Amino acid sequence: MRREPIGPSAAAASPGVRYPLDMRILGLFLVSAAFLCADDKSALLQKMDSQAAHYGDLSRKIWEFAEVGYQENRSADLLKSELRSAGFTIADRVAGIPTAFTATWGSGKPVIGIMGEYDALPGLSQEDVPERKPRVEGGPGHGCGHNLLGAASTFAAVTLKQWMQEKKIAGTLRFYGTPAEEGGGGKLYMIRAGAFKDVDTVLSWHPSDNNGADLKSSLAILSAKFRFYGKPAHAAMAPDAGRSALDGLMIMANSVEFLREHVPDSTRIHYVVTNGGSAPNIVPDYSELFLYARHPSMQVLDGIWERILKCAQAGALASDTRLETQFIDSAYNTLPNDALAALVDKNLHLVGGVTYTAEEQAFADKLRKTLPDATRPMGSQEKIQPPTEGKGGASTDAGDVSWTLPVAALGTATFVPGIPAHSWQSAACAGMSIGRKGMVVAAKTLVLTGMDLFTDPKQVEAAKASFEKRREGHEYRSRVPADQKPPLDYRNSK
Amino acid sequence: MRREPIGPSAAAASPGVRYPLDMRILGLFLVSAAFLCADDKSALLQKMDSQAAHYGDLSRKIWEFAEVGYQENRSADLLKSELRSAGFTIADRVAGIPTAFTATWGSGKPVIGIMGEYDALPGLSQEDVPERKPRVEGGPGHGCGHNLLGAASTFAAVTLKQWMQEKKIAGTLRFYGTPAEEGGGGKLYMIRAGAFKDVDTVLSWHPSDNNGADLKSSLAILSAKFRFYGKPAHAAMAPDAGRSALDGLMIMANSVEFLREHVPDSTRIHYVVTNGGSAPNIVPDYSELFLYARHPSMQVLDGIWERILKCAQAGALASDTRLETQFIDSAYNTLPNDALAALVDKNLHLVGGVTYTAEEQAFADKLRKTLPDATRPMGSQEKIQPPTEGKGGASTDAGDVSWTLPVAALGTATFVPGIPAHSWQSAACAGMSIGRKGMVVAAKTLVLTGMDLFTDPKQVEAAKASFEKRREGHEYRSRVPADQKPPLDYRNSK
Amino acid sequence: MRREPIGPSAAAASPGVRYPLDMRILGLFLVSAAFLCADDKSALLQKMDSQAAHYGDLSRKIWEFAEVGYQENRSADLLKSELRSAGFTIADRVAGIPTAFTATWGSGKPVIGIMGEYDALPGLSQEDVPERKPRVEGGPGHGCGHNLLGAASTFAAVTLKQWMQEKKIAGTLRFYGTPAEEGGGGKLYMIRAGAFKDVDTVLSWHPSDNNGADLKSSLAILSAKFRFYGKPAHAAMAPDAGRSALDGLMIMANSVEFLREHVPDSTRIHYVVTNGGSAPNIVPDYSELFLYARHPSMQVLDGIWERILKCAQAGALASDTRLETQFIDSAYNTLPNDALAALVDKNLHLVGGVTYTAEEQAFADKLRKTLPDATRPMGSQEKIQPPTEGKGGASTDAGDVSWTLPVAALGTATFVPGIPAHSWQSAACAGMSIGRKGMVVAAKTLVLTGMDLFTDPKQVEAAKASFEKRREGHEYRSRVPADQKPPLDYRNSK
Amino acid sequence: MRREPIGPSAAAASPGVRYPLDMRILGLFLVSAAFLCADDKSALLQKMDSQAAHYGDLSRKIWEFAEVGYQENRSADLLKSELRSAGFTIADRVAGIPTAFTATWGSGKPVIGIMGEYDALPGLSQEDVPERKPRVEGGPGHGCGHNLLGAASTFAAVTLKQWMQEKKIAGTLRFYGTPAEEGGGGKLYMIRAGAFKDVDTVLSWHPSDNNGADLKSSLAILSAKFRFYGKPAHAAMAPDAGRSALDGLMIMANSVEFLREHVPDSTRIHYVVTNGGSAPNIVPDYSELFLYARHPSMQVLDGIWERILKCAQAGALASDTRLETQFIDSAYNTLPNDALAALVDKNLHLVGGVTYTAEEQAFADKLRKTLPDATRPMGSQEKIQPPTEGKGGASTDAGDVSWTLPVAALGTATFVPGIPAHSWQSAACAGMSIGRKGMVVAAKTLVLTGMDLFTDPKQVEAAKASFEKRREGHEYRSRVPADQKPPLDYRNSK
Repeated sequence: MRREPIGPSAAAASPGVRYPLDMRILGLFLVSAAFLCADDKSALLQKMDSQAAHYGDLSRKIWEFAEVGYQENRSADLLKSELRSAGFTIADRVAGIPTAFTATWGSGKPVIGIMGEYDALPGLSQEDVPERKPRVEGGPGHGCGHNLLGAASTFAAVTLKQWMQEKKIAGTLRFYGTPAEEGGGGKLYMIRAGAFKDVDTVLSWHPSDNNGADLKSSLAILSAKFRFYGKPAHAAMAPDAGRSALDGLMIMANSVEFLREHVPDSTRIHYVVTNGGSAPNIVPDYSELFLYARHPSMQVLDGIWERILKCAQAGALASDTRLETQFIDSAYNTLPNDALAALVDKNLHLVGGVTYTAEEQAFADKLRKTLPDATRPMGSQEKIQPPTEGKGGASTDAGDVSWTLPVAALGTATFVPGIPAHSWQSAACAGMSIGRKGMVVAAKTLVLTGMDLFTDPKQVEAAKASFEKRREGHEYRSRVPADQKPPLDYRNSK
Repeated sequence: MRREPIGPSAAAASPGVRYPLDMRILGLFLVSAAFLCADDKSALLQKMDSQAAHYGDLSRKIWEFAEVGYQENRSADLLKSELRSAGFTIADRVAGIPTAFTATWGSGKPVIGIMGEYDALPGLSQEDVPERKPRVEGGPGHGCGHNLLGAASTFAAVTLKQWMQEKKIAGTLRFYGTPAEEGGGGKLYMIRAGAFKDVDTVLSWHPSDNNGADLKSSLAILSAKFRFYGKPAHAAMAPDAGRSALDGLMIMANSVEFLREHVPDSTRIHYVVTNGGSAPNIVPDYSELFLYARHPSMQVLDGIWERILKCAQAGALASDTRLETQFIDSAYNTLPNDALAALVDKNLHLVGGVTYTAEEQAFADKLRKTLPDATRPMGSQEKIQPPTEGKGGASTDAGDVSWTLPVAALGTATFVPGIPAHSWQSAACAGMSIGRKGMVVAAKTLVLTGMDLFTDPKQVEAAKASFEKRREGHEYRSRVPADQKPPLDYRNSK
Repeated sequence: MRREPIGPSAAAASPGVRYPLDMRILGLFLVSAAFLCADDKSALLQKMDSQAAHYGDLSRKIWEFAEVGYQENRSADLLKSELRSAGFTIADRVAGIPTAFTATWGSGKPVIGIMGEYDALPGLSQEDVPERKPRVEGGPGHGCGHNLLGAASTFAAVTLKQWMQEKKIAGTLRFYGTPAEEGGGGKLYMIRAGAFKDVDTVLSWHPSDNNGADLKSSLAILSAKFRFYGKPAHAAMAPDAGRSALDGLMIMANSVEFLREHVPDSTRIHYVVTNGGSAPNIVPDYSELFLYARHPSMQVLDGIWERILKCAQAGALASDTRLETQFIDSAYNTLPNDALAALVDKNLHLVGGVTYTAEEQAFADKLRKTLPDATRPMGSQEKIQPPTEGKGGASTDAGDVSWTLPVAALGTATFVPGIPAHSWQSAACAGMSIGRKGMVVAAKTLVLTGMDLFTDPKQVEAAKASFEKRREGHEYRSRVPADQKPPLDYRNSK
Repeated sequence: MRREPIGPSAAAASPGVRYPLDMRILGLFLVSAAFLCADDKSALLQKMDSQAAHYGDLSRKIWEFAEVGYQENRSADLLKSELRSAGFTIADRVAGIPTAFTATWGSGKPVIGIMGEYDALPGLSQEDVPERKPRVEGGPGHGCGHNLLGAASTFAAVTLKQWMQEKKIAGTLRFYGTPAEEGGGGKLYMIRAGAFKDVDTVLSWHPSDNNGADLKSSLAILSAKFRFYGKPAHAAMAPDAGRSALDGLMIMANSVEFLREHVPDSTRIHYVVTNGGSAPNIVPDYSELFLYARHPSMQVLDGIWERILKCAQAGALASDTRLETQFIDSAYNTLPNDALAALVDKNLHLVGGVTYTAEEQAFADKLRKTLPDATRPMGSQEKIQPPTEGKGGASTDAGDVSWTLPVAALGTATFVPGIPAHSWQSAACAGMSIGRKGMVVAAKTLVLTGMDLFTDPKQVEAAKASFEKRREGHEYRSRVPADQKPPLDYRNSK
């Protein structure tokens, strides 16, 4: 649902700096000499290169499964099996969700988490070719690259675990298998179930068309389905005997349009009519409107939402129909973490960007021609973008996690520059070598960052301080109704 | 307000039959020989001809006063003075209204009433010439001919009183001076004050462009002003801080439009925006919508009104503003009375229609040319239309009276055929000889009908039986809020 | 689509008169002695009783086929086979429609037609039991009794043909197999193809819950799908880059609501939103509104339709989207034929109503309890309703036929009194003995009326005179766009 | 109209720095030693103190005149007379506007202008007391302090002229008397008439609640009255015969609401219904909507305006009415000038802020209590705010001037801190000593800045360079229709 493209329009294209290799090594010495031997990191990066193909295969399998939210059974099983084999202890069916799990290794403090997602998007089935060609007509596909996400995070977790074991590093490492990011809000229910309670810091990343630590915030979102129940009647013979559920919906929608003038700038309200009556000659006794509201601040959004609810009630009142409001989803705006962004940025520069082969370059060129207004320049995949503030247009359930504890966020160039997420083009990238190269950059950066956090308590402290400063005393409060169970079938209804 | 034109579209133009004079005399013998000497009626009609000029002058004076509803002080005084001189006892300030009064003569049963109105309409000031020429620019005028109405009813009352006195007829005769028929609802408050409590039958008439006893029903009406109160804010600097009263009004209006599909045929809902905000750069904190709803049945209208109120509440709810609803006016649909219509029809045929002089004919021709689509043919003023059922498009507070006791209703050709009421053309007619000829037809018919009712108890019984049959057990209930005082200043605000 | 219930609210329940048998015979002598021996009719009625079971079976088969409009292949084949066996010449694929056909016998004048329909309604699959029980979940069913319609008309055609052959009656008899009456407008295309060109009079009937010749008019109808094409954009990231097709639809719909005040009474406009956007986070680039407009007069409806088209254009203009209007269906209001109604009424009285067995009575009682507000009384199925004028709330493509030549129309009690068409209850009746009894009444009445028309040229002349008088010079003009082909797949899309 | 408050919310309250006197002198030496003797400035400032009372009186007279836009006859005459006496040559009736004029002295280059306004605002009549007390009930008042504006600019012009004459400074000095800034757009017509053609730089200032050179931009604005013409009809008798002008307006307004989602952030669209029909029982044949649209960029606003016009056309199309669009006003967003802002800032620091007497302090305290949420702190009137970028919420016709040549802009604390413009509170300040103190600060700063520009060609060059850089090649194009005359009566209609 709300994992929208982080495309060219959503990120300024400032030229990243590429450090020459020796400079990188030097950087390692200068920055982390005090607590971590630069050789450790170098060695681990080399080791990861040798295992990249295995995790690339893993990502390809999940790409082929292409399972939508809360139905990622085979995808989750694959990751669980991988982690179990590596020695992690699996906690299954977290929050009562069949495809949510955690995989833990080690003990004691600090507790560092790594999040992985693996759900696909409806309608985006696509072969790994640079023209539109669905694998299964109308089927789901990995347009947001979550196949890479889950695989890279697993890659990072396993690598870190081996390093910790080898180096006898204290602390607890935990992989979070978080399903249904695309509108199902898996993380919300995992938070509610207490799965993040004891964690100090969480590492996350997301496929993108460029490389950069993330300081941007997403939009807080609330969404619901508004259902009106009227009274049917023959529309020609006895229209006065009917109570039109469609009228209720229309009046609500009109009212929402009038509301637009009186909400703060940067508010977004958008809706579709998912049921607008069945037959013209019957006064509709049922209608449904599906609405999202967003704002850069959840606290502000609460006030806007209250007014939207009143518009819905007004629709029912004026049309003499009954209203049922079904909460669908919510997500906080993500709370950036300055300390973690700096750490990630540093490590990302150590890892470097993505270099294409001639073949990949040809694929990229061809793909970009299908989106002629792609603004991000070719070649930017090789660079690192500096972390910059700003608000994106997307929303994510990782936002909720970011208001409960410090979260590191990162994007890597899994998609050809200029290719937005949630497109068949991104789905194609996610299934071939370009996507896999980007995922390795992510996995490596997560590993280096995890190493820092496990070995330098000050980094964890700094992350916590950044977290406290940014949230300004606001206590996280889930917007999910207390009695709402995870909408495990939310992908069936539409 | 709702005293709308009873124009060409409101009455079928069936050719009336004119009885030759001798046939009329014969008819008198045949029909009323048992209880009333035909000579009585003939004599009285002749006597009335000799007094017609006096009452014509009276009507002209009121035409020149041209006083709007609840401000008809000089008009009411003139009629009271006339009736007082004739021996009637005046009850002044009925229902606390300065220009409402009754004038009573005689005692005992039956009690027969005659209603008279005398309020003018804003904006219809007009000379008695066949082209548009206001006497006072923008001033009020007698576009509904109520100057004739009050004068003819007074004429009838005085004549009947003299006849009763002379012939020693038992019973009570009462003139009702009913102000502010045009939207002020004078009669509603007089009913509430008990002014009609002891009456057996009421005679009424109304200026028209043709002659006929009235079996048609008017439309029941309810009207209110819907006022929204919001919160002002600078519309460019802080529109989100404002709560728009105009939004409230717009959402209400939109909702009412959706309602139209779901009300019975023949419903009418119409409104204007009487205040839509003061300046574009301020979020409006006040707005006002003035709405009428009508239907041939007050009982059905009640249900429609309830839904309109919900639309108004929805407007306030959705816009986060406060709603105040001010009841303005109501009127029942008129309940036709079959027995009285037959009686009036009979007497109207005795009286005959209106014959123009050459001068009047020229005036009429010229006037009709200003309304080229006048469908009622010239010459029809000389004829009597048969009483026919049907629903008109107008509303009147006489409707409320008609649900409390039997009311006789009559129209006479005071306006040139094809000239609708509420026009400058009808205002012109009401001030010259054509209007005065029509008013004499009315006065005479009222007198003859009054004679029948005073001398034949069976006629009163028949009227009561017709009343009971038509109302089908429905008990009159005023729609005026119990605590509402007559809106004496309703003509000042607009 | 628009073959709506001719239920209790659509016909006044005046008590029909049942003539005693001998009186009927007498009537035959008195009325038709001059040209037709009463024995002929009596004999034929008896003969039909002996063949009723066969045609009942036919109707049951079509009921089981339950094929929707333009897909009535097996149903049409069954009727064609029956008519071919009886000696008729089949003209197949009339107007290029696979399931439209004519079956002709005889030659010369007069040419008398009988129309038969056989399409089912989506969603009304039902067993022949008095509680809701679909034969196929969600499948189509004969809720309008067209299985009976086609079978009875075939029964009448075959019977008439045998009589003509036996009695050497001159003239041409033609059965019209008219598909897709329920919204597909089969007859419109058959008219356009010239199939009714040489016909003098057409006989038609329709299942109902009572017996009576039809003088009522249906509503003229026009319908279209309004499709808006916008420009997609991410609704959170770049809503200003999008052009919302849903906005276009909403503005059109709102505009139509405002139009409601300014169309004549008895107008009906109703619509549903058949596509209101796909996902809330995308500015919808496509939307579709499906709208019907109706009025008792096609000529008046034309003017209303023009304004609706303007509302649609306004929606596109204001939202900067593109509009495509797809004509879907049209039907004239039916033009009653006074002469034919009198003839049918006479013959219907000869035939008599429907008498239930105890079992049928029990079925009827049980069925009526599922619709507790059924107003038509039990027992009325035995009676004949007098032909009365009026406008129903339904529409039919038979309306178009009725403006091109004289059409006789008839309803018979195939449904339990009080059971409206287009219900599972009517679908149940159409599959069991009650429906079959009603269809025999229809078949018999059609036969008797056909006999009259074939043997008495004056009856045909009278029918033509009635036709000319009612249409008042209006020349039939199909509202189907000239280049529009029959919408053979109209039942697939929804 | 659109001279909206530049109140506390529109400007960040950063603490200004007050230089000690000796530092100021030092500054003079350092900065302008090369071309201007610091003593010159000091001397002139002292001389101005001695003449402040005279110009204060002038401002008070104009405050008492309180003449609205294009009716500022006495106000303009007073200023013209003052300037004529001082030796300026008056050009009267510029652009055909009775109250627009220029006053020129000197010759040759550079040509430096000073702009002065003098129109009052409707409804803001107020005594110079700290509670709401109109001088004339409902009358106009100087809520935007334009009485001070015109007087201070005149003060500056006369002072500069005397200095130029005395010091034999080359160049041309021109005072611009620009009427009807509040919605009449006087400057637009003066530009069109070529009045600014030969000018190098224009100095302007505006009353405010704080002191600071202005780098902020105002909003571009376009406004129009949308008039719909329908066809009247009796709303109960023949609503279908009417064409509702109110419907046209409502559909337009609804459409504009749907547009809101699809315009860029920071767009403002606001409207009021200035005529929503006259009487509920008549289908309105006339309606009027008055709308403003604004955006930080005129070029972007053009595109938004085009869509608003389409919404208006859609209203007419859907309601079958006729649309007339009357352009009312336009203004470019102001183009800040960095070089001039720096120069003004420098001189403003030389002049210093406003110091209150105890009496003034008491007045200020009392006044602030009437606006309890005044955020700008007391005492800030003594300080100088640094020039900061940003967009305000107001609009001004000075914006158009700023796109044709370099304009210096300045605000001074004529209003008590926290008091917004366009309030009775600001009107009170503008009539008493606090306002007059602020106007002296303005006059002095204009004089010092004028001295710099006349004596240092590089400053003029820098101003021009800043102008070119900011406008990025955009050529000024007036949005006033070519055939539109100044709306001299725009204050009569409302």
